[in-house]
Amino acid sequence: MSLDLSQYIASYPDYPEPGVLFRDISPLLEDGAAYAQATDEIADFARERNVDMVVGPEARGFIVGCPVAYKLGTGFSPARKEGKLPGETQTVTYDLEYGTSSLSLRKNAVKPGQRVLVTDDLLATGGTIEATIELVEKLGGVVAGCAFIIELNELNGSDKLKDYDVLSLLKY
Amino acid sequence: MSLDLSQYIASYPDYPEPGVLFRDISPLLEDGAAYAQATDEIADFARERNVDMVVGPEARGFIVGCPVAYKLGTGFSPARKEGKLPGETQTVTYDLEYGTSSLSLRKNAVKPGQRVLVTDDLLATGGTIEATIELVEKLGGVVAGCAFIIELNELNGSDKLKDYDVLSLLKY
Repeated sequence: MSLDLSQYIASYPDYPEPGVLFRDISPLLEDGAAYAQATDEIADFARERNVDMVVGPEARGFIVGCPVAYKLGTGFSPARKEGKLPGETQTVTYDLEYGTSSLSLRKNAVKPGQRVLVTDDLLATGGTIEATIELVEKLGGVVAGCAFIIELNELNGSDKLKDYDVLSLLKY
Repeated sequence: MSLDLSQYIASYPDYPEPGVLFRDISPLLEDGAAYAQATDEIADFARERNVDMVVGPEARGFIVGCPVAYKLGTGFSPARKEGKLPGETQTVTYDLEYGTSSLSLRKNAVKPGQRVLVTDDLLATGGTIEATIELVEKLGGVVAGCAFIIELNELNGSDKLKDYDVLSLLKY
């Protein structure tokens, strides 16, 4: 029997700033059965798309993507803030609400033609996931799908992902 | 047949600073079979110790611990820099070579008496793992084991872990 994963999401009003209702996946992660179900649902989505590599941005993208990689039997590569990865990297800079940020991926992380699943905990405005996709594609990878535990509808992040297959386990 | 995991570790001289030989687990993570074997070996160690929760510090501790939690069927809780976790948290401050740092864990993450596996990619001086253990114990958890992919012998981190069961898949 499948669990109602929405019962494992906490909501914090006015966090991290006034007017924001923060949706927190911590209770889901802390529950073995709920975390396993979320992982299995994302892995099923990935398997249907012949994924052979998983990439997630720092740091909650690791928590979502790593057990999926294990379930699929694929590798995982973290997209990290610039300067955190040794060796040759590919870097992209992207806009935040105020200022810019950057993400890097090891050049060896993705081989040309590899089918990559991109994971994060939450799809909000989509800036971080768009940067992660750009990194994968610059290395010659094919983004076979994007998977999130939560999608926040009102922030329209899915507009940036129109060309991709997207799985969001919960929508608010 | 089991893989020689040492073949999946890269070495970067003078990174992140002169005189340091950086041991990098990226090639291991990027290889599905090697990452799965490392996960399985840690999960076997944890199962023998009746682990029912996994905790890892930001951010590479997530990459090691999350698939282990999935394999065991337990939850995972991230130990994060102060201010990154919503809700009630427990925080400890610890010394770095220069200055101090802090780590937080959600108060609900660990229940009293729960048997916790603490994971990180690398055991160096042991400061981060010692702080993570302190967090788990302050919440009433029992640290049933500590697991790392790499242990750097010359930095004597294991001296800080004499009272605990420790698994290091590779030692340098």
